[in-house]
Amino acid sequence: MKQDLVIVLAPDSFKESMTAKEVCTAMERGIKKANDKITCVHVPMADGGEGTMQSLVDATNGKVYSLEVVGPLGNMVEAQYGILGEGEVGILEMASASGIQLIPAKQRNPLLTTTYGTGQLINACLDHGVKKILIGIGGSATNDGGAGVVQALGGKLLDKQGNELGFGGGELGKLTSIDLKNFDPRLKEVVIEVACDVNNPLCGEKGASNVFGPQKGATKEMIGILDDNLKHYADIIKNQLGKDVIDVPGAGAAGGLGAGLLAFLNGTLKKGIEMVIEYTGLEEKVKDADMVWTGEGSIDYQTQYGKTPFGVAAVASKHNKPVIALAGKVGEGIDILYESGIDSIFGIMQGVTSIEEALVNGPENVEKTAENIIRLMNLL
Amino acid sequence: MKQDLVIVLAPDSFKESMTAKEVCTAMERGIKKANDKITCVHVPMADGGEGTMQSLVDATNGKVYSLEVVGPLGNMVEAQYGILGEGEVGILEMASASGIQLIPAKQRNPLLTTTYGTGQLINACLDHGVKKILIGIGGSATNDGGAGVVQALGGKLLDKQGNELGFGGGELGKLTSIDLKNFDPRLKEVVIEVACDVNNPLCGEKGASNVFGPQKGATKEMIGILDDNLKHYADIIKNQLGKDVIDVPGAGAAGGLGAGLLAFLNGTLKKGIEMVIEYTGLEEKVKDADMVWTGEGSIDYQTQYGKTPFGVAAVASKHNKPVIALAGKVGEGIDILYESGIDSIFGIMQGVTSIEEALVNGPENVEKTAENIIRLMNLL
Repeated sequence: MKQDLVIVLAPDSFKESMTAKEVCTAMERGIKKANDKITCVHVPMADGGEGTMQSLVDATNGKVYSLEVVGPLGNMVEAQYGILGEGEVGILEMASASGIQLIPAKQRNPLLTTTYGTGQLINACLDHGVKKILIGIGGSATNDGGAGVVQALGGKLLDKQGNELGFGGGELGKLTSIDLKNFDPRLKEVVIEVACDVNNPLCGEKGASNVFGPQKGATKEMIGILDDNLKHYADIIKNQLGKDVIDVPGAGAAGGLGAGLLAFLNGTLKKGIEMVIEYTGLEEKVKDADMVWTGEGSIDYQTQYGKTPFGVAAVASKHNKPVIALAGKVGEGIDILYESGIDSIFGIMQGVTSIEEALVNGPENVEKTAENIIRLMNLL
Repeated sequence: MKQDLVIVLAPDSFKESMTAKEVCTAMERGIKKANDKITCVHVPMADGGEGTMQSLVDATNGKVYSLEVVGPLGNMVEAQYGILGEGEVGILEMASASGIQLIPAKQRNPLLTTTYGTGQLINACLDHGVKKILIGIGGSATNDGGAGVVQALGGKLLDKQGNELGFGGGELGKLTSIDLKNFDPRLKEVVIEVACDVNNPLCGEKGASNVFGPQKGATKEMIGILDDNLKHYADIIKNQLGKDVIDVPGAGAAGGLGAGLLAFLNGTLKKGIEMVIEYTGLEEKVKDADMVWTGEGSIDYQTQYGKTPFGVAAVASKHNKPVIALAGKVGEGIDILYESGIDSIFGIMQGVTSIEEALVNGPENVEKTAENIIRLMNLL
């Protein structure tokens, strides 16, 4: 084997254990211990879900900002957004401002929850003068069709008396007219890309309320109201804005935030992993490398459904580069991944361990596994 | 990499999970899944401790026999011995007949426990007409200096009234004369080799009673008696048999069974791993191979003290063959093993798991790990 390999390190985060950047660092420590002639190119990855903002910021040497915004139930929460390295692209995860994890299980009620805070994060990105905003929309607590976002950005959603609607999916039934006179004009100059891996339409059996409502605390009765309200909301949008979003695949993502971003912000929906691959410049880096390493906390047959190692392997395969994956858990059905361009998969556990120990020891376990992989490669 | 590699598979057993033979089989399944042109040579190994009889029988296509013998406290127990492939070598582990695991913790009392059953296993080997008997002596419940073995093989240990002594280390203080008139004459024609990794003398501070007595249930007072008795026993042996064994390194192994085998059976003490290497023919097989795989349940810095992967690596290093080790647990201080000829070490766990699951899933985990190691090698 040649000694001065170039290896692209393109792992996802290992949830609750390491950010993707930390995984890269641990991989490199192990690699260098076994062969210090190898060059490691760090490309912290994500798939559009949790950790995407952090990974893209890390991959581009950007910066994370914190901001107090209106949380899903109206109380203030501390949320984050990022500005990528060159300063022209903002990035945020809606869950940071409007996520289900912000509300204790008993208080979850999508009649009330709002995406207002997510709109405030968009506004903060605009204040940085970005030309593009990337939005991850997984993990929402809301079912308001993105109404809160519209309100936060200066749009008015009015009832028949001309009063502004309150927060939450329960209010949308009263919507009579949309007033965009004061809607933030900077939005016209900005490209909005939304990382969205679901194809659900806004309404109906496969719509936001029916499919995702229950996990957000909606009862059967509430689901009926929410679904009707989103339908009414889409009708008003169609009539007043001339945009028919109700059946667009992905409109039902994040409680209809997909639809809202399509209709009001002219957003484009993209696969999360593809967005990350684009903004990390992964392909250029893979082209020049000898080998690619990836990984995630748990790898199994589901990884083929757009998760990071699968996306990384697709890029690597295109350029005939071998791919090694590391994972905290190697689950069922991984044979399918071998066919997708992942050549070899190693679990990082060093023995029987509790989940708590495993999370704490993540970096050390990645390092040891990486070291021994290179030690093996050194033999050949 | 050339495709038609020959790999010697020389693991120890993974305690409570797989025999060494089962580890070999699991390794081969994984290897063949990734590259069916590889030839696997199975050499199930051991280090002289638990599992040595089974591994040597498996390595030579020999046979295991069961026998009811007198257990350490005088009750009958089911014990095993083996006859190696060609029929000329018998093998037994003293723990099978006289081991600490045969007695509940509360009943452990080395004043009473006897090696008589171990003598019966030796007798059974003699009945097969073997020319050599290999004896593993780890895990004993006894402190009788091998007196029970002597009794089981026809020797008489007499007190001053000419009565035979009872069982146990507590009786040896009464020993006045040894009568070997009826001692099994076949023993004169048979070579006895003892796998022994401790250097303890028979008596004194570092002797059998002081060092190993407590773990066999001896109180401080009992240790005094036991140590005095072994000293007395050694004096009688010296006077009557002309053999001075008291300070021979290893005489204190297994409650003085080391001394008994030296004095009465003309035994030779050997390092366990060296004995196994010899009788498995490991070196010849390694010479003709491209690579060697080893492994054990738990690998760590202690592995360097004569455990199987260390011994296998020594043989492989002599012939410049690379060595890969698999382990259920990869513990502290493994860097020292890299210097001892183990090139690469992989844990087999596929995620967070309980010890019970880990033991049950051993074969599957070995298989998966082996498969991915070869998948990696296939790349290079």
